[in-house]
Amino acid sequence: MKSAVFENKGKVSLEEISKPTIQDSGDAIIRVIRACVCGSDLWAYSGLDSKETHSVNSGHEALGIIEEVGSDVTTVKPGDFVIVPFTHGCGHCAACLAGFDGVCQDHEDNFSVGFQSQYIRFAYAQWALVKVPGKSEDYSEGMLKSLLTLSDVMATGYHAARTAHVKPGDKVVVVGDGAVGQCAVIAAKMLGASQIIMMSRHKDRQDLALEFGATDIVAERGAEGISKVIALTGGTGADAVLECVGAQASTEQAMGVVRPGGFIGRVGLPHGKDMNPATTFYRNITLAGGPASVTTYDKEILLKAVLDGQINPGKVFTHSYSLDEINQAYKDMADRKTIKSLLVID
Amino acid sequence: MKSAVFENKGKVSLEEISKPTIQDSGDAIIRVIRACVCGSDLWAYSGLDSKETHSVNSGHEALGIIEEVGSDVTTVKPGDFVIVPFTHGCGHCAACLAGFDGVCQDHEDNFSVGFQSQYIRFAYAQWALVKVPGKSEDYSEGMLKSLLTLSDVMATGYHAARTAHVKPGDKVVVVGDGAVGQCAVIAAKMLGASQIIMMSRHKDRQDLALEFGATDIVAERGAEGISKVIALTGGTGADAVLECVGAQASTEQAMGVVRPGGFIGRVGLPHGKDMNPATTFYRNITLAGGPASVTTYDKEILLKAVLDGQINPGKVFTHSYSLDEINQAYKDMADRKTIKSLLVID
Repeated sequence: MKSAVFENKGKVSLEEISKPTIQDSGDAIIRVIRACVCGSDLWAYSGLDSKETHSVNSGHEALGIIEEVGSDVTTVKPGDFVIVPFTHGCGHCAACLAGFDGVCQDHEDNFSVGFQSQYIRFAYAQWALVKVPGKSEDYSEGMLKSLLTLSDVMATGYHAARTAHVKPGDKVVVVGDGAVGQCAVIAAKMLGASQIIMMSRHKDRQDLALEFGATDIVAERGAEGISKVIALTGGTGADAVLECVGAQASTEQAMGVVRPGGFIGRVGLPHGKDMNPATTFYRNITLAGGPASVTTYDKEILLKAVLDGQINPGKVFTHSYSLDEINQAYKDMADRKTIKSLLVID
Repeated sequence: MKSAVFENKGKVSLEEISKPTIQDSGDAIIRVIRACVCGSDLWAYSGLDSKETHSVNSGHEALGIIEEVGSDVTTVKPGDFVIVPFTHGCGHCAACLAGFDGVCQDHEDNFSVGFQSQYIRFAYAQWALVKVPGKSEDYSEGMLKSLLTLSDVMATGYHAARTAHVKPGDKVVVVGDGAVGQCAVIAAKMLGASQIIMMSRHKDRQDLALEFGATDIVAERGAEGISKVIALTGGTGADAVLECVGAQASTEQAMGVVRPGGFIGRVGLPHGKDMNPATTFYRNITLAGGPASVTTYDKEILLKAVLDGQINPGKVFTHSYSLDEINQAYKDMADRKTIKSLLVID
């Protein structure tokens, strides 16, 4: 089967490797029909994170059809259409029960890799996989795109909003205009925010954010961007900030625009400097966030919201590629030619 | 009038200074009847924080009788008996309205000093002061002690529990067995925690914590203390940790015992090292806390709980002193001869 391979900075190639097989009674083998490139995949592609050359791709978002399951898997069967999360929550540990399956306590290997492939082996499949009613052929391409966001970015944007305690009437700032930031706008709207300020300098991303429910756009950054947000919030700062990048500059933006006693929900992988523990303390800022509770949110609210047409996060996929075009899919996203790259796999 | 003066490490003296007068239309002049020494006062007394020699005392907790009010103050009048918080919330800014009057946005000077005195000037008095029904003579010494804790430590312990989202059934760990930690035990119980583990090495403090509602005591520290807590919580770690010290070691204890997806409510003034922003992220730890919402909590729940006898936080005052004995009051608390030193002022 074909699978993407990370070669080095700026280069991802395609390779023929063995089709995966069941290794454990909790495994599922899944034929991938849609996958994609994540903003987090770009840290290594852009050379900002080190990663072993000629190594398995870091893809971790997919839709697929169950091919085979291990003997302990009873929740899905061959032929089922599933959302394949980047997480593998067990559903019964204290963390999962508290709604944090992104940090499941049942096993160490809770994160997925290798999804930019024709087939994948998904461990701890029993609770984590999210079954979609019917067959994949029943759904439009637009619906497939939205379902695919439920493997990561929509759930991750929702995690930013949930951990930042967004509630009806809140003034919310979203830092980061990529797919996760766009989904965070959708999430803030779902949770009743009355003002949603997107910090973005790119016209296509500003437009999508406005379509998703943003009420204001701030293109400025640094001190100027902070001043503008403070003014837009009536001088108070934001009740909640959804930090969807993880860089030092975006963290500083988030700290600068949150009001005293406000919440920051972080979902961008942290790449910033060490923080003085007093920084958040003397302003009573709550700093929350981490790997998203994908399965929990999908089963609780997001799958229904997508299937009902209440939300349409699939619009973050602005270009589609075949698996053969994998490097272009990475490159266009790194170059901001697409907000998020869809991989149509057959 | 007499007022305590910080001289230098290990020495606080008493001085005769002018009685304060109204400076602003929002001021109140208060005759102090009870004050005390706070754990935070000890940072400078113990030489761990620098502080100007021969400077105003850092006392910020008092009960008193209103002597005079500025022309804009309508909520209290001469003769009223009041709890005097360490904060000065305005009650109408976005932070105060969100329940964070400890970080009121109305003015920069939100914190009190100088309360170890016969009289004090309290700025922004209109909303922040907490009126107690009747006269101070109506109350027993035990009740006065409990009312005094509402100027800081009981509200601060409650803030730790509230910002750590303690809810019915939670497994809670309290780090710090001083007055704030003891009050945090009371708060965790009020909020319905089913397990409250106090980390303490001192018999008198262990006993008080058990009386206040702690279900378990862990005397060990470091890796051993963490292992013991993890075992006591059934292998999961705590849902919420109330960090009531602020030192590097106590912060590490808190991080070590919290479960993935858990909450840390911090109320000890942070004196620890800079933190890697990924530390809390990859375990989805919510780091919250800061200066307590004293007036909010007093008016919302704590004053009633004290007056009804539901809670008796005044037991943290294990020794009483006159203002003349101010240095002994500091010294005994620094030497752990008393949990908290009460000052009876006349």
